[in-house]
Amino acid sequence: MGMTMTQKILAKACGMESVKVGEIQEIDVDLVMVTDVMFPLVPDILESMNCKKPHSPEDVLVVIDHYAPAPNISSANQNKYTREHAKRYGFNVIENQGVCHTILPDMGYVSPGSVILGSDSHTVTYGALGAFSSGLGTTDITAAIATGHLWMKIPSAIKVVLTGKPGDNIQGKDVILNVLGQISAEGARYKSIEVVGEGLKHLGIDDRFTIANMAIEGGAKNCVIEQDEITREYLEGVLKKDFKFVTADDDAEYDEIIEVNLSELTPQVAKPSSPDNVVPVSEIVGTKIDQVYIGSCTNGRISDLRKAAKILEGKKVHEDVRVFITPGSQEVYMKAVEEGLMKIFIDAGAFVNGPSCGACFGGHFGIIGDGEVCLSTTNRNFVGRMGSKKGLVYLSSPITAAASALTGVITEYQEGL
Amino acid sequence: MGMTMTQKILAKACGMESVKVGEIQEIDVDLVMVTDVMFPLVPDILESMNCKKPHSPEDVLVVIDHYAPAPNISSANQNKYTREHAKRYGFNVIENQGVCHTILPDMGYVSPGSVILGSDSHTVTYGALGAFSSGLGTTDITAAIATGHLWMKIPSAIKVVLTGKPGDNIQGKDVILNVLGQISAEGARYKSIEVVGEGLKHLGIDDRFTIANMAIEGGAKNCVIEQDEITREYLEGVLKKDFKFVTADDDAEYDEIIEVNLSELTPQVAKPSSPDNVVPVSEIVGTKIDQVYIGSCTNGRISDLRKAAKILEGKKVHEDVRVFITPGSQEVYMKAVEEGLMKIFIDAGAFVNGPSCGACFGGHFGIIGDGEVCLSTTNRNFVGRMGSKKGLVYLSSPITAAASALTGVITEYQEGL
Repeated sequence: MGMTMTQKILAKACGMESVKVGEIQEIDVDLVMVTDVMFPLVPDILESMNCKKPHSPEDVLVVIDHYAPAPNISSANQNKYTREHAKRYGFNVIENQGVCHTILPDMGYVSPGSVILGSDSHTVTYGALGAFSSGLGTTDITAAIATGHLWMKIPSAIKVVLTGKPGDNIQGKDVILNVLGQISAEGARYKSIEVVGEGLKHLGIDDRFTIANMAIEGGAKNCVIEQDEITREYLEGVLKKDFKFVTADDDAEYDEIIEVNLSELTPQVAKPSSPDNVVPVSEIVGTKIDQVYIGSCTNGRISDLRKAAKILEGKKVHEDVRVFITPGSQEVYMKAVEEGLMKIFIDAGAFVNGPSCGACFGGHFGIIGDGEVCLSTTNRNFVGRMGSKKGLVYLSSPITAAASALTGVITEYQEGL
Repeated sequence: MGMTMTQKILAKACGMESVKVGEIQEIDVDLVMVTDVMFPLVPDILESMNCKKPHSPEDVLVVIDHYAPAPNISSANQNKYTREHAKRYGFNVIENQGVCHTILPDMGYVSPGSVILGSDSHTVTYGALGAFSSGLGTTDITAAIATGHLWMKIPSAIKVVLTGKPGDNIQGKDVILNVLGQISAEGARYKSIEVVGEGLKHLGIDDRFTIANMAIEGGAKNCVIEQDEITREYLEGVLKKDFKFVTADDDAEYDEIIEVNLSELTPQVAKPSSPDNVVPVSEIVGTKIDQVYIGSCTNGRISDLRKAAKILEGKKVHEDVRVFITPGSQEVYMKAVEEGLMKIFIDAGAFVNGPSCGACFGGHFGIIGDGEVCLSTTNRNFVGRMGSKKGLVYLSSPITAAASALTGVITEYQEGL
């Protein structure tokens, strides 16, 4: 029986020729990433394991990105604790550089076939480059830090086949929202989502990060996207070492095959309060919004900002809408400055913050109040996710978000708006 | 007996030919400014006054700048309340445009001789342009909103005479810190501080805003700075109407005259935990810092950022120091983008936020934790002002802050650092 991309990565990571769905295997871990939200638990867990010296501290990245810059005293103290203890163990600390899932690939920490575990559920993002990456609880993460490996049940997979060429108003966000609408929030529970097909060649690397990023919203253990010349071009720009693409066997078995014809796809939106509550934007056009948020690990990359800027250029955001833009990283922020996007955003009346997880998880940088409606490019619209439990969050692409910022209501972008 | 600049403004505002120190007069108010921190009290106070219709709602500005963008749910709800009620009364609402004291002058709301009351203590800033401006409690502010006038006890004054030409490493911040060190935090209680002298011609408009801004740290009721060609040039750029300078009578009486010879002034710093605990920077060179904060109504203007950028250009901030830069307004932010300062800051490893009061008052955007030391260009270093009560804040100019950001310790800037 053939193996999926995921199964091939895991087989290699546990030194086997092949693995089977449902087997429990001990896999070697290449990199462990922990954010400021979970790291404070790590030292105590390491001590409870009687671990004085983690397996390979140089392969542990501690990213302070959620409560950064600290919005209150408890966060400031938590970050201080994180810095001090991370350094004590010899872990690498990255602070105020942006969202972990934006900076790790761009800093060259991700390559096809690598195994990366993170304390954040959106760690699945790195599958966009052909890695196995998954978010775990802090106890499991700390076990991986202590030992350099971890048990893993080999997942079955759902294959997503992309065909056709998308319209100009379609982004990766529309693709993954459509998939989530099809499979539901539990449809891929403990499965891999593997994305393939000739439609991929119309989706840039940023769109692919978005797709992999939100696989977790379907419950997926991980996501792997087929690698191609677009992947190669990106990787050659960020990696300092050779890499080899991961491919599925021809006879790999999938639980389900879903096809998305990109040429028929229209802009999608997830209504409150689940990322799988998806409808075409056209169905809810005119819904009044109080805030637009463009950013996060899902849609805070440079192509996201470029597309938003193209729509906002020379126009003003609606007077009743607060528009917040949070670049995913310092590098994205800098590009936005150099390419003139910052000027467009500020001219349009948007507010641009430094790179951070920001308001996506309800941390800071634009929290919503009771009864307020936010259209957001982030990944989750659970009750209370971005602030008040009495607020509502809709999820969309940056294109839909920018178009709606101009009108004050949810809007389907059409050229020349 | 002649009148000070302040007394002349107040005499005019109460329709008298002259006023005397200690008299209580009813003055007409040109503009009332209320921030998001205090506005939520205003509707209830208006109701308790049985005021259904404020005197001139078009002369009331509500600026949402402190908890903006909202860092938590209670702020989001408070801002929502503020927006709704301010609009109900017909007040002008300005949100996410930057710090009130930076934007009001730049938007042309301040002219020589105007009377401006604000719910924020640093409302004294506008005296840099020859206005009478003062911060009051919310009850008094609301009385002015309701009636368009307010009783005022005519203040006596301290005259600050600036002489000489300052060195390149001196900013307005060093001047006012030096004055505060001389007079103490209570030295100007309910007095005007009036700043005159040929030394002024070496201080740009931004330096003057800094000086007026911190007059309140000496307890001053207000501050008026002598107006000249530098004032005129600035005002002609922002005002759409004619204006007339305010001058003191030759025989005006002052309680005290303080001279500062700018040519002898060295960079100054206020040690924890009062703005009058001032020493030359040279006395505490080498003090270790964890954070540098450049921004606020005191030092978040374009010349502040230019000077910081000049020092940071082509260099990297110290690895143990978090450096936060918060422009005072969208306009300043935009200039920083256009002039290439943003690129310098990001290249240097600083984190730049959107314009807001930010961390200055302990709101968000870089709060300090227990035992942490912040060198800040803000106006107050009271215990707990920027976060933990166990943290320490030193106040300095942007030049000193930027130089220290590079070394990780408090540093006196010298050309070629």
